Amino acid sequence: MTEPLILTLSCADRPGITANVTGFLFEHGCNILEAQQFNDRESDRFFMRIEFDPQSSRREDLRADLAAYAARMEMEWNLVRRDRPRRVLFMVSKFDHCLASLLYRWRIGELPLEPVAIVSNHPREAISHTHIGGVPFHHLPVTKDTKSNQEEQVRAIARDTGAELVVLARYMQILSDQQAGHFAGKCINIHHSFLPGFKGAKPYHQAHARGVKMIGATAHYVTTDLDEGPIIHQDVEAISHADNPDDLVRKGRDIESRVLAEAVRLHLEERVLMNGQRTVVFKG
Amino acid sequence: MTEPLILTLSCADRPGITANVTGFLFEHGCNILEAQQFNDRESDRFFMRIEFDPQSSRREDLRADLAAYAARMEMEWNLVRRDRPRRVLFMVSKFDHCLASLLYRWRIGELPLEPVAIVSNHPREAISHTHIGGVPFHHLPVTKDTKSNQEEQVRAIARDTGAELVVLARYMQILSDQQAGHFAGKCINIHHSFLPGFKGAKPYHQAHARGVKMIGATAHYVTTDLDEGPIIHQDVEAISHADNPDDLVRKGRDIESRVLAEAVRLHLEERVLMNGQRTVVFKG
Amino acid sequence: MTEPLILTLSCADRPGITANVTGFLFEHGCNILEAQQFNDRESDRFFMRIEFDPQSSRREDLRADLAAYAARMEMEWNLVRRDRPRRVLFMVSKFDHCLASLLYRWRIGELPLEPVAIVSNHPREAISHTHIGGVPFHHLPVTKDTKSNQEEQVRAIARDTGAELVVLARYMQILSDQQAGHFAGKCINIHHSFLPGFKGAKPYHQAHARGVKMIGATAHYVTTDLDEGPIIHQDVEAISHADNPDDLVRKGRDIESRVLAEAVRLHLEERVLMNGQRTVVFKG
Amino acid sequence: MTEPLILTLSCADRPGITANVTGFLFEHGCNILEAQQFNDRESDRFFMRIEFDPQSSRREDLRADLAAYAARMEMEWNLVRRDRPRRVLFMVSKFDHCLASLLYRWRIGELPLEPVAIVSNHPREAISHTHIGGVPFHHLPVTKDTKSNQEEQVRAIARDTGAELVVLARYMQILSDQQAGHFAGKCINIHHSFLPGFKGAKPYHQAHARGVKMIGATAHYVTTDLDEGPIIHQDVEAISHADNPDDLVRKGRDIESRVLAEAVRLHLEERVLMNGQRTVVFKG
Repeated sequence: MTEPLILTLSCADRPGITANVTGFLFEHGCNILEAQQFNDRESDRFFMRIEFDPQSSRREDLRADLAAYAARMEMEWNLVRRDRPRRVLFMVSKFDHCLASLLYRWRIGELPLEPVAIVSNHPREAISHTHIGGVPFHHLPVTKDTKSNQEEQVRAIARDTGAELVVLARYMQILSDQQAGHFAGKCINIHHSFLPGFKGAKPYHQAHARGVKMIGATAHYVTTDLDEGPIIHQDVEAISHADNPDDLVRKGRDIESRVLAEAVRLHLEERVLMNGQRTVVFKG
Repeated sequence: MTEPLILTLSCADRPGITANVTGFLFEHGCNILEAQQFNDRESDRFFMRIEFDPQSSRREDLRADLAAYAARMEMEWNLVRRDRPRRVLFMVSKFDHCLASLLYRWRIGELPLEPVAIVSNHPREAISHTHIGGVPFHHLPVTKDTKSNQEEQVRAIARDTGAELVVLARYMQILSDQQAGHFAGKCINIHHSFLPGFKGAKPYHQAHARGVKMIGATAHYVTTDLDEGPIIHQDVEAISHADNPDDLVRKGRDIESRVLAEAVRLHLEERVLMNGQRTVVFKG
Repeated sequence: MTEPLILTLSCADRPGITANVTGFLFEHGCNILEAQQFNDRESDRFFMRIEFDPQSSRREDLRADLAAYAARMEMEWNLVRRDRPRRVLFMVSKFDHCLASLLYRWRIGELPLEPVAIVSNHPREAISHTHIGGVPFHHLPVTKDTKSNQEEQVRAIARDTGAELVVLARYMQILSDQQAGHFAGKCINIHHSFLPGFKGAKPYHQAHARGVKMIGATAHYVTTDLDEGPIIHQDVEAISHADNPDDLVRKGRDIESRVLAEAVRLHLEERVLMNGQRTVVFKG
Repeated sequence: MTEPLILTLSCADRPGITANVTGFLFEHGCNILEAQQFNDRESDRFFMRIEFDPQSSRREDLRADLAAYAARMEMEWNLVRRDRPRRVLFMVSKFDHCLASLLYRWRIGELPLEPVAIVSNHPREAISHTHIGGVPFHHLPVTKDTKSNQEEQVRAIARDTGAELVVLARYMQILSDQQAGHFAGKCINIHHSFLPGFKGAKPYHQAHARGVKMIGATAHYVTTDLDEGPIIHQDVEAISHADNPDDLVRKGRDIESRVLAEAVRLHLEERVLMNGQRTVVFKG
């Protein structure tokens, strides 16, 4: 098998669109390994994800033909190599359980990524529980006055390392609108509540005060609208009256770690497509 | 075994309180069948639920002694017969899945209740899918102008039937502050969202618009503060981008039915104690 | 929109198969509403489910063309009208919670079925908690000696009513091999355990004795191999040491009801395809 | 507050037992922080766990009095300091996700333990993804011929380090009956299936072959009866037809890690009591 490719696309829904797209691939000698589609009857939009073996077809030719084809069909599309690890920049503050979990999953080959940098507003010693190893670590403290400058440094690191995705792994600083806009669609955050409940700071304390019976976590794309970005994945767990805020923080770590890891996996495997303020997630 | 009793109580926490309370019962010849306690270190309050066999002790004597004892200890308390069905008044609008589920559970003996009345703002024909049988049905339509009068009728029915609990089984009218106050602590509502997310009307449509990946339901005591009452039970289920609002409504029915039934069971079995705006739930 | 159709099919996987099938539909003027496929790399088999609007194409012509096409492609296939309720025969013993739940879902239009008969080895009075209404009820008691005869009667009812699906809604009799074979692929059973754990009788008592921390239910197609048929759906719930077998039975009722209802819905919507001893379930 | 103690006990159930035990503590000046009890009506046995502040009472005196008291009451009991980390010996083979997760939880202070040794039948290089740091690592390969000797070495390490708990964190060797007996009640294993389904080797492959719709993991005490020991904790996750055995292994890692960590936490916090072949778990 040649190295498989993944094609994702969206366009206005119309009769014959599946046949048309899959026919295009067949004519180019490609063999589908996995395919999912979603016909959104609300927006009349069509979404598709196809994992395929290009066989003898040359990737450059395929890409050129696809570009022409997609232009005719007024499609948004993306074609990537399935097995090439994506360059990922991690940002973290003091709580490093999400980072530790992501790096472990990378090390055992579960997440197809290449960690190009870890940026923290705390020094490396503060992230002492995580096995950072040789991943470049950048301590970029941030204050009100230096925020703009610090964010520029982050953008520079992202540019220099060719980062394709920024993961906010419990990075407790709010990105400026400029920064959020710069990384739009390429920056995933984990919020430690079941959004839209308990936005903002200290969500576990809010949850305890309200007396809810379940807590959760939400992985979403970062937008300029805080805690309002398109949601990729969520999960929850039951709690009881006996759980104080510290217990919620402990239980929450597990939920946060697995929700963020799953969202990152879904993104890296090109399983998440934007549909306005919502996402289409092809779980496979 | 004599008919078991259930004692629930709360008071300021203090050394020896468990020994004190259980000692009281032992001295009165009572045998504990099940006991749970919660020492809330935040509020320094103690909560306890004890299911016990009173054996040869007379209930009236026990109650009198307990009253004196509780006064000395500055306790809030409640003593009830475990196996006496509680008189319940149900309120429902058009969607009757919660009502149908509750009545089925009553009929097979799962919920220890006696349904004394069903009140609906729709005529009996509108609740056509539920096996109402001989349960008295009251059609009390409500408009802006008649609301006050209608609520008075509901109070009259509750009074005349000796209703001990009012269950809003998808009753789609907002109770007035007066009515909510009247039934305070004795009225359970099911809200079709995972509160505090999506308060108010059409929560499934709100959930769809926001693009969340799970939907839920919340059973809570009714207070004058809409959708803000103490939460008894919650549950959720995963959804996907392919679920339109109608799918959410369908999936939600199951969650609502089981969350409300569980909350009603917990209440009827005296497993729910108030702790300010939150609840202590002794699951057993 | 014309009445939508559902096409399900499976065949050997081969390059271009998706384009081929969807191209066939496009050429016949059909418009896809929803489509899922699964390329099983283990068995090299291809599975597909397509919901489509046939538009102006005549169903008879489509069917004839499809038959010829499928023969050429060596496909197993099925074409049905999406919105035509399927005729379902229910079998039940004494515990009627699954039946009650299924009939309620039918009455409110959640399950697209037409109940053609209820068969029980107990008299109608034993199923007293369910709102049977006008659904024909057949009391067919069964003993060792009469089993063969009773099963013949069931087959006769199924034949006379044109039943397309038999649902064993807690029918506590084991079907003979002959009967299981007769209804192969058209008979769904609910087993009250998380198979393959706790096969056979009294699974909740087995679960309690083993001390598991979760109980579950399994909906599967009936085969001659008891409790070994292809699984359609499963779910579980946490339990604790404090749950005695009666508690498990109570908690289990909810799981059984929703697992069976979901399996029946998936089957009725043609979302379940056989893949040897396993199933492909296109959840939608 | 003095350092809290935890008392766990079990004895024949009898009237006044709660008052008796809590009275004993009150007379010794102890203040209860958290208490749970379970009256097992099946076995007529009483189980209790009490977390308390001994205040001015001296631990040695309390222990002596308790011993005398427990002898009179024919109680099994255990009294431990709540905040003293327990010495834990980990055993692991090649898959180190459970070990990595446990060590991380230890490092951030989530699990109150002191890792005294890691024993593996593979060399340290094989466990390359885990941040072992300064924890003593023992490579003890095992073959059929050396097994008895290797197990003796493990016992020696346990003895020399004063290990109080052995955690089999995906240790893929079956302990001999002698070894299992030696560590009885002090050795927790994680089995990668929802027991009693799929005992023995390669449970994910078994699960895939059977076509179940959920997979799980089970943490249990090791006994001489393989995969039959008392269960402490279990959890599951939904899977689909599209998950091949490798996907199950990946999804399973998360379940295994959190189920084992939770079981270890429950054990370390003295929340697990034996009740024959089953456990009483006071979740708190």
